[in-house]
Amino acid sequence: MTDKTRIAILGASGYTGAELVRLAARHPRMTIAAITADRKAGQEMADVFPHFAGLDLPPLVSMEEVDWSGIDAVFCGLPHATTQRVVKDLPAHLKVVDLSADFRLEDPAKYAEWYGHDHAALDLQKEVVFGLPEVYRDRIRSARVVANTGCYVATALLALLPALREKVIAPDPIVIDAKSGVTGAGRAPKENTLFAEVGEGFAAYGVGRHRHMAELDQEFTKAAGTPVLASFTPHLVPMNRGILATCYVRAAGGADAVRACLAEAYADEPFVHVLPAGKVPSTHHVRGSNYVHIGVVQDRAPDRVIVLSALDNLVKGASGQAIQNMNLMLGYPETMGIDQLPLFP
Amino acid sequence: MTDKTRIAILGASGYTGAELVRLAARHPRMTIAAITADRKAGQEMADVFPHFAGLDLPPLVSMEEVDWSGIDAVFCGLPHATTQRVVKDLPAHLKVVDLSADFRLEDPAKYAEWYGHDHAALDLQKEVVFGLPEVYRDRIRSARVVANTGCYVATALLALLPALREKVIAPDPIVIDAKSGVTGAGRAPKENTLFAEVGEGFAAYGVGRHRHMAELDQEFTKAAGTPVLASFTPHLVPMNRGILATCYVRAAGGADAVRACLAEAYADEPFVHVLPAGKVPSTHHVRGSNYVHIGVVQDRAPDRVIVLSALDNLVKGASGQAIQNMNLMLGYPETMGIDQLPLFP
Amino acid sequence: MTDKTRIAILGASGYTGAELVRLAARHPRMTIAAITADRKAGQEMADVFPHFAGLDLPPLVSMEEVDWSGIDAVFCGLPHATTQRVVKDLPAHLKVVDLSADFRLEDPAKYAEWYGHDHAALDLQKEVVFGLPEVYRDRIRSARVVANTGCYVATALLALLPALREKVIAPDPIVIDAKSGVTGAGRAPKENTLFAEVGEGFAAYGVGRHRHMAELDQEFTKAAGTPVLASFTPHLVPMNRGILATCYVRAAGGADAVRACLAEAYADEPFVHVLPAGKVPSTHHVRGSNYVHIGVVQDRAPDRVIVLSALDNLVKGASGQAIQNMNLMLGYPETMGIDQLPLFP
Amino acid sequence: MTDKTRIAILGASGYTGAELVRLAARHPRMTIAAITADRKAGQEMADVFPHFAGLDLPPLVSMEEVDWSGIDAVFCGLPHATTQRVVKDLPAHLKVVDLSADFRLEDPAKYAEWYGHDHAALDLQKEVVFGLPEVYRDRIRSARVVANTGCYVATALLALLPALREKVIAPDPIVIDAKSGVTGAGRAPKENTLFAEVGEGFAAYGVGRHRHMAELDQEFTKAAGTPVLASFTPHLVPMNRGILATCYVRAAGGADAVRACLAEAYADEPFVHVLPAGKVPSTHHVRGSNYVHIGVVQDRAPDRVIVLSALDNLVKGASGQAIQNMNLMLGYPETMGIDQLPLFP
Repeated sequence: MTDKTRIAILGASGYTGAELVRLAARHPRMTIAAITADRKAGQEMADVFPHFAGLDLPPLVSMEEVDWSGIDAVFCGLPHATTQRVVKDLPAHLKVVDLSADFRLEDPAKYAEWYGHDHAALDLQKEVVFGLPEVYRDRIRSARVVANTGCYVATALLALLPALREKVIAPDPIVIDAKSGVTGAGRAPKENTLFAEVGEGFAAYGVGRHRHMAELDQEFTKAAGTPVLASFTPHLVPMNRGILATCYVRAAGGADAVRACLAEAYADEPFVHVLPAGKVPSTHHVRGSNYVHIGVVQDRAPDRVIVLSALDNLVKGASGQAIQNMNLMLGYPETMGIDQLPLFP
Repeated sequence: MTDKTRIAILGASGYTGAELVRLAARHPRMTIAAITADRKAGQEMADVFPHFAGLDLPPLVSMEEVDWSGIDAVFCGLPHATTQRVVKDLPAHLKVVDLSADFRLEDPAKYAEWYGHDHAALDLQKEVVFGLPEVYRDRIRSARVVANTGCYVATALLALLPALREKVIAPDPIVIDAKSGVTGAGRAPKENTLFAEVGEGFAAYGVGRHRHMAELDQEFTKAAGTPVLASFTPHLVPMNRGILATCYVRAAGGADAVRACLAEAYADEPFVHVLPAGKVPSTHHVRGSNYVHIGVVQDRAPDRVIVLSALDNLVKGASGQAIQNMNLMLGYPETMGIDQLPLFP
Repeated sequence: MTDKTRIAILGASGYTGAELVRLAARHPRMTIAAITADRKAGQEMADVFPHFAGLDLPPLVSMEEVDWSGIDAVFCGLPHATTQRVVKDLPAHLKVVDLSADFRLEDPAKYAEWYGHDHAALDLQKEVVFGLPEVYRDRIRSARVVANTGCYVATALLALLPALREKVIAPDPIVIDAKSGVTGAGRAPKENTLFAEVGEGFAAYGVGRHRHMAELDQEFTKAAGTPVLASFTPHLVPMNRGILATCYVRAAGGADAVRACLAEAYADEPFVHVLPAGKVPSTHHVRGSNYVHIGVVQDRAPDRVIVLSALDNLVKGASGQAIQNMNLMLGYPETMGIDQLPLFP
Repeated sequence: MTDKTRIAILGASGYTGAELVRLAARHPRMTIAAITADRKAGQEMADVFPHFAGLDLPPLVSMEEVDWSGIDAVFCGLPHATTQRVVKDLPAHLKVVDLSADFRLEDPAKYAEWYGHDHAALDLQKEVVFGLPEVYRDRIRSARVVANTGCYVATALLALLPALREKVIAPDPIVIDAKSGVTGAGRAPKENTLFAEVGEGFAAYGVGRHRHMAELDQEFTKAAGTPVLASFTPHLVPMNRGILATCYVRAAGGADAVRACLAEAYADEPFVHVLPAGKVPSTHHVRGSNYVHIGVVQDRAPDRVIVLSALDNLVKGASGQAIQNMNLMLGYPETMGIDQLPLFP
């Protein structure tokens, strides 16, 4: 046991928390030392998530009850705004991967614009690393606090960033039509995520203005070296897991140039597969895994290209990515504990 | 009975055929005189579609067995290519609504280009009217043969045509990201429409090149008065019914101008609802009905607008639209037999 | 308008309320004069249920705002316990169909046993008629207040009552394994009816003891003339609508005798179809309709028979049945406004 | 590599074949040396199952192309009847786990009765061990050929066998109402497993007589020491994976006695969890895993008990069980490679 990293999972009663438990419980070099949940403190995890029946886990406690001296690393799955206050007060010996949106925006002005209030931990924000391993791997290795990339944003960034950076695609126009399973909306009961409101139907939400855009803008703009203001529309699919982004871009070299650029950029990536010409990705084929599938298709006009990207929002879009980041921070093999194959069907 | 139109439904063993039976059986001025099915001839409809148990219907017969003298009007739901040969040989006293793609393209060259062979009924093609009542209502009234608009195409055309025609939106770029339920793929068993291949996942298909594009091009180009070559990507949603099109367009006047244009164009339409600002459509809310819901949203750049359109692919996208067309051709009230409210949830 | 019954729908913001609006809005002899909702008073119905966009409906009001002098008949879709207090104070000129469980139990002692408190309207209870038209049609015609049968109970009673009454099946053992779509749980947000908790899975609930059993006992016992205490287990299916009951019974005459008994009992029923030997019912084939499909199958032992029954819980199990009862109470044709064919798929 | 068992998977183009690949590819002591598929020979597995993109697998070949000298163990996922002919001709050095129904029935007369023809490998049948590890663990360890238990049968046997054996429940009446996800029906395209035929609905199939009954009879009868002829009805749930069996039995000691018996029988079982009183199992909570959850509930009459059992039909009901059996046959730890936690949601 002494060679294992003792982890705490804050906010473990939601879907990403449960997914962290699922992955960490079988991780060869992690041991789950504490799991917290606000309203469900005192309960057993197997009562909150019966799929953990028979697993030896500590009980859910409130955050105040955690003895931080027995913890080496923290996964923080708390709600927006709460998070920044909690993370800034965590003991400095802890490595932290934060799954919320609180530390993703580098520019305090952008944060204030999109969230309507000043950030409460600006000093800490300066040292936080944006947690997309395929882009910031080296900085993540030496970070103390990493801000996990959001699920929609990860899907779109992985689809386009290398091609934007290499100027293989134009920075404008970019249309990202994204579709997500329902777990992205969390476990708190709301009318619009009831089975009967979601099943047998399809709709967009947050059309025109959605907080994810701020992250997209930040990373696209950095990669392109010029301001990028993509169109982005999220939709809700009657399924539990998965995100597919269909991205419409302009590329003078056409689809082959874009595919070649992505294939080269991801040649050594353990989790990103650029599909061969003629293939398009499906969320079916990444379910339950940390893998990303990307396909590139030539549209009818020679300079129009469609890039499609699929991942599991709870794994590569959240908890799997968080483990991947923590593996990097802890010096473990990057794929450790997250190389499960997709569950199909 | 003598005041009822005696109809035949050709190809009644598929989903659109069944939907025609569902609607026609309760239509006050239609009586189902013949229903045909190739391989299922000789069977009772209630054996092929048990939801018709207890309904008094003629048995399924082969097309050769139909006595056309007892028929006034025909709904033709036969496969592509077969259709053009069948329809051209139907007796001239019959009104025909064809649900296939065979007679939708006016230009024989375009037909040959997209379908890879010459059209077999070019003379008939010349008199066929494109069956979108909201655009061609007057011509449909006096037509003998009407080519029903395809389900994807109807969704996109209704979203954009008036604004294109009035030059409220630009003819380029137009991106149409479309999502359909599985019934659009028909009832013939195929691996890729099995429950386990579709459920709990989401993917695009026919990316880059899809025959629906030819119809889109034709009608968009006519409306805009200039060649239009939209991007169009269909996706498969794990649901039975419904299409949602998310359309990304440029409009100097922004969303308000687009919404006003559509609202005016559809002010007297019985089946098209342009939603107020702040609302977006969902396929949930048109299921089982002939209604179309359209929403218009301002994107982040002032000249970028997102138009969303939802309908039931089997009703307004196929069989309901066919009844609507036939009502016009027969001089009946346009909404007769197809004014059922949506079934939600 | 003067020849139409002016109806009020109390508690219209739930699924059964919406379904009553859907059916009543197209009923030739009903006009919707008032619709009430507690927390959503003041809203338009099309905001609460966007599938009613474009329909001319009165706004949602609180019950106190209803002018009862302008109302002829009431559908009451209020929660348990509230209902009994509301219905007893309604003006006496109103015909009432109550969709709650409040007035279904004839025996005050049984009510107190199952619900844990005394009934608040025992005088009214005495005159209420149990609203299963196939059993109590004549009494319903002259009733002022009818207690609609619950959805599970209707499914099971229609499957077995005639055979119990005719002693074609034994009163013990009877096992009723029932499966329902999610709308049966209502529209109030709860964790256990979220899409992600219901989709891609299957479970039982309320096992061993469920309030529906009291109604089952009452009606089975009356029919059999001897106490009947069936086993009954409800399950939740990842679908919106539909109930299937699989009933395991003993019948000396085997399946043929049971089927013959049911077929005779329901020979003239407009909504009940007893399927021929070799066919079993599916909820797919009654969706959105007031129809019930019943199948009877011989088990391996000669005296063991399996009776399967399917209906749409929101239509024949609730709102369609309510309209059917009200049609009887108003002297209208029993099928008026509820003869829509099932929506498949 | 030399310390790994070289396995072949016969019939790898179906769902259980894919699931074997998923599990074996990450098994620490197995290496996939050959995978066969009849019609898809010559294709890459990642073309047949895109969720294996990036995995290093041999190409699909026909069975004739396999060099058996390079194989140590075989998982046989071939169709019924074909299987018996193939397995009997496999070289004797191979350990075999057969996933078909061909070798499950010990009695040749029963086989002939249920399958309508004589068994083609009766000599081999005599040495085959019935592959339910929780019952036949010791015999499986030394077996050369093991017949994997069917998915429905495993669910029911695990629920009831210990209690039957200990005479804690009566051998009659037993009602097993079982519900399965669609993958149980395989990947071959058929109309009745299309998405649109399964989604948003629920039905029974194979009612009254189903080949699984023969296996149930065999094992129940052996355990009870007296002939057992349970009622068994399978149903199709609109979900991909999972089986729930709801079993109605008589037990003089009531639910507590049954639960205690099962808890004791499974106390040391790594994959079977008997839930505490008040809890019932759900297929949601075993998805993608080799775990089985069992709950026991008291019905209203003191001697009536309801036992519910849930597993994933493709894992514990097929491929996970097969790996578990093979682990035993190879002397590996029983849980090796199959201890993944369930994927929820």
